[in-house]
Amino acid sequence: MPTDICFSFTGFACRGGRTDEHRDGWGIAFFEDKGCRVFRDYLASSESPVAQLVQHYPIKSTNVIAHIRKATQGQINLANTHPFQRELWGRYWVFAHNGNLDKLPTLVGKTYQPVGTTDSELAFCLILEKLRAQFDTEPSAEVLFQAVSQHAGELAQLGTFNFMLSNGEWLFVHCTSHLHYLIRRAPFCKAHLLDEDVTVDFAEVTTEQDQVAIIATQPLTDNENWIALMPGQMIGFMNGQVCWQAQTLPETWFEARRQAAKTAA
Amino acid sequence: MPTDICFSFTGFACRGGRTDEHRDGWGIAFFEDKGCRVFRDYLASSESPVAQLVQHYPIKSTNVIAHIRKATQGQINLANTHPFQRELWGRYWVFAHNGNLDKLPTLVGKTYQPVGTTDSELAFCLILEKLRAQFDTEPSAEVLFQAVSQHAGELAQLGTFNFMLSNGEWLFVHCTSHLHYLIRRAPFCKAHLLDEDVTVDFAEVTTEQDQVAIIATQPLTDNENWIALMPGQMIGFMNGQVCWQAQTLPETWFEARRQAAKTAA
Repeated sequence: MPTDICFSFTGFACRGGRTDEHRDGWGIAFFEDKGCRVFRDYLASSESPVAQLVQHYPIKSTNVIAHIRKATQGQINLANTHPFQRELWGRYWVFAHNGNLDKLPTLVGKTYQPVGTTDSELAFCLILEKLRAQFDTEPSAEVLFQAVSQHAGELAQLGTFNFMLSNGEWLFVHCTSHLHYLIRRAPFCKAHLLDEDVTVDFAEVTTEQDQVAIIATQPLTDNENWIALMPGQMIGFMNGQVCWQAQTLPETWFEARRQAAKTAA
Repeated sequence: MPTDICFSFTGFACRGGRTDEHRDGWGIAFFEDKGCRVFRDYLASSESPVAQLVQHYPIKSTNVIAHIRKATQGQINLANTHPFQRELWGRYWVFAHNGNLDKLPTLVGKTYQPVGTTDSELAFCLILEKLRAQFDTEPSAEVLFQAVSQHAGELAQLGTFNFMLSNGEWLFVHCTSHLHYLIRRAPFCKAHLLDEDVTVDFAEVTTEQDQVAIIATQPLTDNENWIALMPGQMIGFMNGQVCWQAQTLPETWFEARRQAAKTAA
């Protein structure tokens, strides 16, 4: 629902330069059926005129991905601004990444090539290239989820790989360090933003059937029950529900982390 | 320059529902180096809040493509809204079409597939697929221009094929019925819009070196020397200059048109 999007984005946009340091550009993608609108700016979201428009423009959308950037690899410019978009099997795919990946493998296929210079866009191209090599036509969402979770697990071993990926039908999210989600459904109540003193009473703007999943690096509200994802946890959402789950990281990854913690101590 | 873009778009946006009938959605793509911003809406440009933002937001861009839609094939929705965007050889390509094509060939390759149901997006995918099959890596702009003009000539025989195509570096335009262009350069003077009573004195907002090419189906101003393109004429622009020219239609096309005119008379 537009109210959910505008509300969440109001708090989220503050983190791009005001309540948080992710000020190196921002972007948001709205799916409407198979169509997709992407707004992007290399300005901080707290200062961008495009962000102000998005905050007040009641766009109806089934899946939305927003991103605020803190540059790790690649300059601050439009080509390096998330979310990234490509077409696969006649649908748009949209990807946003929080984290940093080192020593990414070279692209073997030639179908998808990064336009910018971020690790994130390269990782996105790597995943799409692998999926295209695996499947001639679009498989079921469940099969896709399994395939993506395998590729996510491989890439996640190269650094921090919190990401969101959607083709408009489903939303796959992956966590290696920080990611939280919330299912907002009946009975609805008032929600209060963490980053700005704004409250919305969702009981007034929803119907009994409405259900929305909100996923964010850090919780956006201070009075709802956000659930933290574990490292290596991947979840597939559809129609505001948790549909698929996977653990993408091998036991060796956790063992190595325990060893590193011990050494540090 | 932002002034050129805002000025042209102010007149152009009127044609989406106010001074003309192209009210089935609109879109605009701005290239900034290799990055690209695309704003799209299925509302008429004369009524869209996003269009109002674009009209007043001073975006600097080397190549801009805007489109207002009058639906011929495909429903009015976001997926069918121009301009369309894909990635080829690590660059974004953007395409907008005015006209209607019948009996388009089936796509043989599988790299680019239409997301929506327009003839325009299919024609765009056909061109990209052919270029990818012809060249492993990006050839020179001149070689590309020749290749695109060949494919344009083939598709143009299936209907009306006025289009604009850009990868951010160059802008290729093709005419089969209506297309006009204008080179705005020193000495600059006042320009007055056709669709709205707005005048800009470009002498006040430019430097001696500025040079801009503006291409539109119909002239946007009533006091500048717009040049009409001929059927089958394709022009490649770069940095506000005409760089390449081609005639894409065979003599048989013109002969058939003369015969049809005779029969009608």
